[in-house]
Amino acid sequence: MGARPDRIAAPPSKRLARVLVERPRPDVDGGRYPVKRTPGEPVHASVDVIRDGHEVLRAVLRFRGPGERRWSEVPMVAVDAERAGVRWAASFVPERMGAWQWTVEAWADALASWRHEVDRKVEAGQDDLSSELAEGALLLRATASRAKGDDRALVDKAATIVGDESASTGERVEAALDATVVAACERWPDRTGAGALAAPQDVVVGSPLGRFGAWYELFPRSWGGLDGVRRRLPALAELGFDVIYLPPIHPIGVKNRKGRNNALVAGDGDPGSPWAIGSPEGGHTAVHPDLGSQDDLDRLVREARELGMEIALDLAIQCSADHPWLTEHPEWFSHRPDGTLKYAENPPKKYQDIYNVDFDCEDWRGLWSALLDVVRHWVDHGVRVFRVDNPHTKPLRFWEWLIDAVHTDHPEVVFLAEAFTKRAMMQALAKVGFDQSYTYFTWKSARWELEEYVGELAHSGEQEYFRPNFFVNTPDILTEELVLGGPAAFTSRLVLAATLSPSYGVYSGFEHFEATPVRPGSEEYLDSEKYEAKARTLDGPLLPLVAHLNGIRRANRALQHVDGITFCDTRNDGLIAYAKQAPGNTVICVVCLDAGHAQEGLVEVPDTLGLPPTFAVTDLLTGERFTWRVGGNYVRLVPGPRPAHILRVEEA
Amino acid sequence: MGARPDRIAAPPSKRLARVLVERPRPDVDGGRYPVKRTPGEPVHASVDVIRDGHEVLRAVLRFRGPGERRWSEVPMVAVDAERAGVRWAASFVPERMGAWQWTVEAWADALASWRHEVDRKVEAGQDDLSSELAEGALLLRATASRAKGDDRALVDKAATIVGDESASTGERVEAALDATVVAACERWPDRTGAGALAAPQDVVVGSPLGRFGAWYELFPRSWGGLDGVRRRLPALAELGFDVIYLPPIHPIGVKNRKGRNNALVAGDGDPGSPWAIGSPEGGHTAVHPDLGSQDDLDRLVREARELGMEIALDLAIQCSADHPWLTEHPEWFSHRPDGTLKYAENPPKKYQDIYNVDFDCEDWRGLWSALLDVVRHWVDHGVRVFRVDNPHTKPLRFWEWLIDAVHTDHPEVVFLAEAFTKRAMMQALAKVGFDQSYTYFTWKSARWELEEYVGELAHSGEQEYFRPNFFVNTPDILTEELVLGGPAAFTSRLVLAATLSPSYGVYSGFEHFEATPVRPGSEEYLDSEKYEAKARTLDGPLLPLVAHLNGIRRANRALQHVDGITFCDTRNDGLIAYAKQAPGNTVICVVCLDAGHAQEGLVEVPDTLGLPPTFAVTDLLTGERFTWRVGGNYVRLVPGPRPAHILRVEEA
Repeated sequence: MGARPDRIAAPPSKRLARVLVERPRPDVDGGRYPVKRTPGEPVHASVDVIRDGHEVLRAVLRFRGPGERRWSEVPMVAVDAERAGVRWAASFVPERMGAWQWTVEAWADALASWRHEVDRKVEAGQDDLSSELAEGALLLRATASRAKGDDRALVDKAATIVGDESASTGERVEAALDATVVAACERWPDRTGAGALAAPQDVVVGSPLGRFGAWYELFPRSWGGLDGVRRRLPALAELGFDVIYLPPIHPIGVKNRKGRNNALVAGDGDPGSPWAIGSPEGGHTAVHPDLGSQDDLDRLVREARELGMEIALDLAIQCSADHPWLTEHPEWFSHRPDGTLKYAENPPKKYQDIYNVDFDCEDWRGLWSALLDVVRHWVDHGVRVFRVDNPHTKPLRFWEWLIDAVHTDHPEVVFLAEAFTKRAMMQALAKVGFDQSYTYFTWKSARWELEEYVGELAHSGEQEYFRPNFFVNTPDILTEELVLGGPAAFTSRLVLAATLSPSYGVYSGFEHFEATPVRPGSEEYLDSEKYEAKARTLDGPLLPLVAHLNGIRRANRALQHVDGITFCDTRNDGLIAYAKQAPGNTVICVVCLDAGHAQEGLVEVPDTLGLPPTFAVTDLLTGERFTWRVGGNYVRLVPGPRPAHILRVEEA
Repeated sequence: MGARPDRIAAPPSKRLARVLVERPRPDVDGGRYPVKRTPGEPVHASVDVIRDGHEVLRAVLRFRGPGERRWSEVPMVAVDAERAGVRWAASFVPERMGAWQWTVEAWADALASWRHEVDRKVEAGQDDLSSELAEGALLLRATASRAKGDDRALVDKAATIVGDESASTGERVEAALDATVVAACERWPDRTGAGALAAPQDVVVGSPLGRFGAWYELFPRSWGGLDGVRRRLPALAELGFDVIYLPPIHPIGVKNRKGRNNALVAGDGDPGSPWAIGSPEGGHTAVHPDLGSQDDLDRLVREARELGMEIALDLAIQCSADHPWLTEHPEWFSHRPDGTLKYAENPPKKYQDIYNVDFDCEDWRGLWSALLDVVRHWVDHGVRVFRVDNPHTKPLRFWEWLIDAVHTDHPEVVFLAEAFTKRAMMQALAKVGFDQSYTYFTWKSARWELEEYVGELAHSGEQEYFRPNFFVNTPDILTEELVLGGPAAFTSRLVLAATLSPSYGVYSGFEHFEATPVRPGSEEYLDSEKYEAKARTLDGPLLPLVAHLNGIRRANRALQHVDGITFCDTRNDGLIAYAKQAPGNTVICVVCLDAGHAQEGLVEVPDTLGLPPTFAVTDLLTGERFTWRVGGNYVRLVPGPRPAHILRVEEA
């Protein structure tokens, strides 16, 4: 068997780890994208640890926070029924915002394997253990040489006894298996040949607002400008809102300006759409003079924060025909063969009031930098939340770069993706970095639709990176359900949004039950605020319920996370029921889905929730107390007066 | 908005592909391990192709075979309901054994997007298209400059018409949308900015025997040595076997040799276990003199191949106390502290006749090379199949290296993993390279167990890399089901193995209904052939059925693949039914699981199989013809005389 020089396949130049560490969870696309957390939200990490033979294995979870070079460690434990002895798990809790990483190191523990072997031999009554004990003494001696302080002395002493041929076998075995000696040894393992994950897993830890918050959307021009909004801040805080989102506050183009109800030609005094950004008065970093000044915005942001709220601005990467960039940087825009600029189109629709930048232009790097500077301008002025308009029509790699650049300095900044498009694109935007996302919620009405959709958001793996914001309406979306259902439908949709999703939003007018479409079947509002100013007041009849719901949401952790939801059968598709759970907090919601008729059913509480056979609940909407039980619970709801139960399970 | 030198986040230095290509399937652990195929088995590749905006996308599947530097291409098509417009798919068929790769390239097609835009505008009745047509002429001109031959002239001519302002809009549009022009343009796309998979996906294409074959295991010493086996080759070929597997044929140790029925001390003339490899007469590259010579082995291999069969040798990496390596290479073995060698143990069991090599020894590279040389020795002597003993007690990375080294020269060599251990380890061995694997089949008796287990093997993703071999028995495994069930159980297990798994095996004795355990409840045979020679004859009463089944398997492609199986309800747990399908071949099997009583039921043929409402079937076991239908089909089976149907669906 001499070597054959003609076809040597040399063994690897270095020892390969004999322990394989694979299949890390949570993960997004095999580690290509980070998972998301907020401070205090644990990462429950698990991996496969596989090694040949029967050695005793040990594994540690290693993690580090932003800027840390050293890893922290926690021991992992073997968990699985599922994977038959190869699954190991441990958790860590990232406490600071920024970029975290985790990995796993695993090794065969020679000393623990030796103890296991001796254990079995003693149990089997094997008398002669001299050879085994001599080996154990060597292993203990090696452990002592790694140990420090008391452990070192303790293990060294044990090694001496175990290796003492003049002592009895019983004494020697006892010294080796002594619990304090074992504990000391476990602190100084020999990790030679340890295996690790092929690459660390990334966790982006961002603002709690990325996960949980109540949003209110308003057009400042309908409220007396930025200063008018500022005067409403105490009332908005009182209502329990966390984010006040303003559509674009920048100067609006005049050329090709759209009129009321999206008329092609604006009438005298028509203010135009705020999304047609830019005029001689400035572009994306300017404030519309009619709304106020940069100082007014700064003051608004500051006073909002003092009340525990954030102002969200709109980031809409598009320019009106009057935007300064069109003349300063024509190279950033698409041109026709005759050299003129191309306005936006989605044939046969034409958006003559809007020009899109060309992300593929020659000077794309200049364009990208300018866009980052826009965001940084507002961040420098204290803005921490951006609602991004139509991100799905801009390159994913651009967002990945921009959001990362902003998060590097300001991990607390929240980007909300306003994309209503195919699911895969919405997921992709979340993967590349958006903290939060609009959803299909407004179009999910039937019980099965809601159960399926929320089930996917909560349990399909999407919960690791896609964080929903359930807006009940938007300036673009007035659903048929609201139009036909009237106030009862508004109420039920509000309760659903506020309890199904940790983040939800209301566009002003909803609380007044506004429900007149521009024409039958359209989701556009008649006299849409997009094209004209309104005289808004903060006194809609739904606001007391909004305030009540926001208070309930803040007091119940179960409502602050998208996972931890279990849908319950109701034996009636007119009733939807779900339990939401967080440690120490269980809330059971039942909502009437029929805007026209009372509905009754049996809410089936499954035993998987870990509740006692009977338990007390308090209806957080009414204060009533009931006794519920695992199994069926009779419920009758009446649209309007009694549209829902939000039942907190009381501790026994 | 000047640049801020204190915190510049420069845009990427190069353009990033605007098209993302992700989530390739089939894959094993995100591409960490290759998928497996045999020549002619297609790879149905699919990916997510995601790009912002509304451009028309194009994607090609690129693949290359062993030694090829250039990629071949086939166009992909958008497929998915599932992923809402982002899933693209195409297939290729690897025809040669060796290492294949595939990837995907995808891009936005500016010209196709332009056509789509013009289409929509024409449809909407837009009159003035002069700007659009000018742009189209530019795109066509650019396409012509890339094109060659007739295409170039054709596209160039179209560009001229489209750009001709003196022609009518109708003529110009027609020239642009002309089908032959479009087809020509599609052949010369502009792939600027194309995206691709992050890394190519690997496909290992190996011997068809890795997937499909009938195995017969025999101890040569019970058949008159290698020459005795050679004389039985024509009969074995007649029975339809593909692989004759011989337990180790090497010299057997004398020191600590085990006696009959695993006695600690061998009696005079006891031949010992063939797995105690090595004596002064040689080690892993020697032939036991009692069995014959190396020349006899060579002749056996050669004559088997002439009959269409392969000889499988046993690769058991362990040494008897008399193996030459113990003295030539003591550094390859574990030692006790007193310097003596450690025999194998699995406390409290001791294997004093066996020493394991130490894969962690100082000279591990020398050891690995020597083991590769062992395999190469037999490969050089024509052996193409190795059944590997207990691979799960040797490092996974060692197998990955060894199998790859052998496959580099000889992709046709098949390694069968004899690992009965936790599922994850069995999967890991298949992932690192084993072509084929033993399974839990012998312990799966109940209908639900078989359905669940085979369902996992066929549909869970495991089918991409784990290829089962269903042995009905082994020298170590005589199941209680056979002991208690008698001949009827043997028959039913044989039919199940031969029809559920493309590869299956029989250890000699099975065909004689041998079923006496060494003691009640043990899976060991009484007077096990592992420790003594038998006088075997090839005349067991089950052999006609074996031959019949092997013929049926060869004639029906549906039985040659593990996937393509659909279990059918039978309304009786005593009957199991499954349809197996390959293109142009549907076989429906019904097997009686009760060895004691006749069973009747309704086999529910689902409409998902694509069969006509009624169809003719031929029972391949009896030649009878029946008419079956989609829906319930009455079946009555009688253990013994009529244990199963194997129904081939006849073409209408």
